[in-house]
Amino acid sequence: MTDLLLRNVRPMGGAATDVTVLGGRIATGPAPRGVPVEDGRGLMLLPAFVEGHTHLDKTTFHLPDWLVNEVGPRIEDKIDTEREWRARTGHDAGAASLAIARAFLAAGTTRIRSHVDVDTSGSTRHMEGVLATRDAMRGLQEIQVVAFPQSGILGRQGTEALLDAALAMGADIVGGLDPCAIERDPVRHLGIVFGLAEKHGKPVDIHLHEPGTMGAFSLDLILDRTRALGMEGRVVVSHAFCLGDIPERDRDALLARMAALGVAIATTAPASRPVPLVAACRAAGVTIFGGNDGIRDTWTPYGSPDMLERAMLIGLRNNFRRDDEVAIAFDCVSAAGAKGCGFADYGLETGARADLVLLDARSLAEAVVARPPRRLVVSGGRVVARDGALTA
Amino acid sequence: MTDLLLRNVRPMGGAATDVTVLGGRIATGPAPRGVPVEDGRGLMLLPAFVEGHTHLDKTTFHLPDWLVNEVGPRIEDKIDTEREWRARTGHDAGAASLAIARAFLAAGTTRIRSHVDVDTSGSTRHMEGVLATRDAMRGLQEIQVVAFPQSGILGRQGTEALLDAALAMGADIVGGLDPCAIERDPVRHLGIVFGLAEKHGKPVDIHLHEPGTMGAFSLDLILDRTRALGMEGRVVVSHAFCLGDIPERDRDALLARMAALGVAIATTAPASRPVPLVAACRAAGVTIFGGNDGIRDTWTPYGSPDMLERAMLIGLRNNFRRDDEVAIAFDCVSAAGAKGCGFADYGLETGARADLVLLDARSLAEAVVARPPRRLVVSGGRVVARDGALTA
Repeated sequence: MTDLLLRNVRPMGGAATDVTVLGGRIATGPAPRGVPVEDGRGLMLLPAFVEGHTHLDKTTFHLPDWLVNEVGPRIEDKIDTEREWRARTGHDAGAASLAIARAFLAAGTTRIRSHVDVDTSGSTRHMEGVLATRDAMRGLQEIQVVAFPQSGILGRQGTEALLDAALAMGADIVGGLDPCAIERDPVRHLGIVFGLAEKHGKPVDIHLHEPGTMGAFSLDLILDRTRALGMEGRVVVSHAFCLGDIPERDRDALLARMAALGVAIATTAPASRPVPLVAACRAAGVTIFGGNDGIRDTWTPYGSPDMLERAMLIGLRNNFRRDDEVAIAFDCVSAAGAKGCGFADYGLETGARADLVLLDARSLAEAVVARPPRRLVVSGGRVVARDGALTA
Repeated sequence: MTDLLLRNVRPMGGAATDVTVLGGRIATGPAPRGVPVEDGRGLMLLPAFVEGHTHLDKTTFHLPDWLVNEVGPRIEDKIDTEREWRARTGHDAGAASLAIARAFLAAGTTRIRSHVDVDTSGSTRHMEGVLATRDAMRGLQEIQVVAFPQSGILGRQGTEALLDAALAMGADIVGGLDPCAIERDPVRHLGIVFGLAEKHGKPVDIHLHEPGTMGAFSLDLILDRTRALGMEGRVVVSHAFCLGDIPERDRDALLARMAALGVAIATTAPASRPVPLVAACRAAGVTIFGGNDGIRDTWTPYGSPDMLERAMLIGLRNNFRRDDEVAIAFDCVSAAGAKGCGFADYGLETGARADLVLLDARSLAEAVVARPPRRLVVSGGRVVARDGALTA
């Protein structure tokens, strides 16, 4: 059932119209007789949302008990705490990722890029769990999986081989992590990451938390390798906090190189530290898109499978107050996310995959700030959720 | 009907117990026969929330149409845009404030401090509207009203007399605004503000957006006057952004003076600019509490009558991840708010006014990050809302 007629809907909050879906894609012209009809009641029609940076495998979203967070302040504390907790509890990354992926779908997100831990403690167990979720959601939700060395590669013998195995097993993207601050040997770390990308013919997405000039140095090395290997348009830098705390001239020089090489930025827009500003990145021609990062895991109690909440947080972080600015925050969890992650056939144009959300808002800005319930979620032309609950 | 027995509730998420309310206050021991009973079903019991800094009069929350925001970037743009919009539309501050006050109550907030514009364009019309709302909500919700010179005092002849009239009419607190950056004569501005406070025997709450050393200078002058007039414990500085961007040594010297003089800080914890950090203020002994600032007005489309959302934003801004840290974020919209604003008889202790919220959360941290629906709101022992809707 992938034909559908949505009657009386307002695309992006504009004038009311009917939208026809044929063969799971947005079509032109009136619907043939017999096509199932949904009465849109004048609701706003949005393209379904894109989660560009999360960790489906880490969440405790599915657990009956609240996880009390008592973790220390350093990033190493968080990495170690998580590995110990996981070993102690036998955390089931398959169940975790499936529960949160379904919550994302019910809230209107049909495309997700998830980093998935690969390390010498958990081996590829998390990868297996999330790949099972990717398979379970196929047709309903497109999940990209990054093989992510959360505990580093260089300090733990065997991690490179595990990443190699994860990619052979079906991971879509090669991950990396703080080449200087954590790995302490940026050339070796990036050599392995880009080597695996070359070997498997897969894109790269590197967590770069490093601040200031150290982060800028690592970013520079990443750009060198992107160019040398002809990986234009196939590299994402996640966080890139350094772009928020180096002088504007240096920032703009890096942004210009990123734009030329098609290197995109994933941002969670955290309120508590310097970040790459969305307006500066876009002005330079760099694609920047949004994600939760972890959701209710050992790192953080925050986060939500509602990408409109992330859009609101991006708007607040960037002081986007005008309606045209709030629309940019929405773009970060929709079209820019699809572009940055390489999800194909995205949007409301004819021919796009019919991944759609209906909700009650007078304007796009209201959709972001009020985050009203999702009245209808459509994936590939099929109704998959109503009023926040999955239909199947 | 101000007696009530709440059976099977978990105060602050602790062990289940029964809570007795007699004469509108929390009592000790079992309830007398015949007292109305509410089955708490093991829900979490919290003290009702405190909104410490908002502008009830400005909101467009009650209007049928979405207000498209096209305002310029400077604070003066926002002030001018608002005054023009208001003159053009004949904005009804009474209807606006009543609608949002009721929404606050339904979401569990029973104490509000609202700044209310007094200026030569609107005269005391906003004040009259919000005082009518204060009267209408009396017994259900305690509203403190600040006579706030949003357009400045010095540049508009007649504003001082209007503030004087607003205070005579029943405003509770004298407001002030950026003595250097906007008023451009800090000594004269503060002379008028503190003069009105002395004349009417009322406390002071000054908006201080000024950054860096300029803001620190204004703050210093405020502290001088607080001491000279013996106004210890009766002065609030709202925003105090300067405390987020001066050297720590200077910040701590100011915080020490504020602690000694009982000068509190109201923060909205904006994500996009330096702010006073909650942990630093509390470590210095300074009361810091939370508020929305405006909610969906000509300044901003953001904000919500749900103070748990503000607690979440305070937590995110301050990077509060541990459960004990998230509890501090909640304190900012509860006990610290009551202390900073001077709302009496607050809390869950015996003798406190029975202003209570029941909701479904496993931990206080979950209440903040998930912001579940309010199952029950009690004010002075009376059930005033169920499942997000007012009962009367």
